[in-house]
Amino acid sequence: MPTDPHREIERKFLVRRLPDALENYPHAEISQGYLALGPDGVQVRLSKNGSEHSLTYERGTGNVREEREVELTPEQFATLWPGTAGKQLTKRRYKIPLGSRVVEIDVYRGRHEGLVVAEVEFEDEQSARDFVPPDWLGEDVTGDPRYSNQLLAQGAAV
Amino acid sequence: MPTDPHREIERKFLVRRLPDALENYPHAEISQGYLALGPDGVQVRLSKNGSEHSLTYERGTGNVREEREVELTPEQFATLWPGTAGKQLTKRRYKIPLGSRVVEIDVYRGRHEGLVVAEVEFEDEQSARDFVPPDWLGEDVTGDPRYSNQLLAQGAAV
Repeated sequence: MPTDPHREIERKFLVRRLPDALENYPHAEISQGYLALGPDGVQVRLSKNGSEHSLTYERGTGNVREEREVELTPEQFATLWPGTAGKQLTKRRYKIPLGSRVVEIDVYRGRHEGLVVAEVEFEDEQSARDFVPPDWLGEDVTGDPRYSNQLLAQGAAV
Repeated sequence: MPTDPHREIERKFLVRRLPDALENYPHAEISQGYLALGPDGVQVRLSKNGSEHSLTYERGTGNVREEREVELTPEQFATLWPGTAGKQLTKRRYKIPLGSRVVEIDVYRGRHEGLVVAEVEFEDEQSARDFVPPDWLGEDVTGDPRYSNQLLAQGAAV
């Protein structure tokens, strides 16, 4: 278990080859929009994941970040969502089991159609360093700002 | 009625002389903390006003701003509040009736002890311009960044 439940340790990869029969894995439509993108990597993000709504505060960069998340009611979400205009993205997220871990594959839609990125979360930094990705994962782009959701939401082309 | 319920029109004043028997007017302890303070006047603010908790998104500057606010449960508030560390302020807010309007007087506490600011909200810009402040209100500091809560929360001395 992580010592601080609000710290997230993860690695991000490009995807060389999508798993076969991708639609058979659990997946959900995700909409994300940014209320704020401040200095020091501060972001306040709204997410709709299937029928679940949430607000997430994040601070920091790279593979270790402070993250605080609360569930929102659909009403709270609907009130705040228009504030994210121009800073929104949609993607379909697939969850692929890999040993004791789960690889989350994000297939972007809308103006980033064609972009595919995978993320793996770890319980500590040692595990993150030790992780050997399967051959269907490609370049490690952890911390590469071109693949950050906040830049993508603002419309940057990769 | 304002045409857009999310637009706020208000004027801010220094206070020349506090009303007599101030403690007899309705008042509440307010804590505010900023999750984000971005460019373009974007801010995401947590507030505890008496026993009520809320999250507010604001964008824009001056006397016209876009504002979206949702009530939070105490649990949602408690999860997010630590993210405002270093960007918090506390004040006591008094509500003083003035004809058909209400003057909100904020008496700051903590490191801004001694600072007092008053705000009046209006239904449209014409009313805001036409408002003649009573003689106990002082200089109009609407839009003066020195008296913005976000700067005060970051510790700026007035």
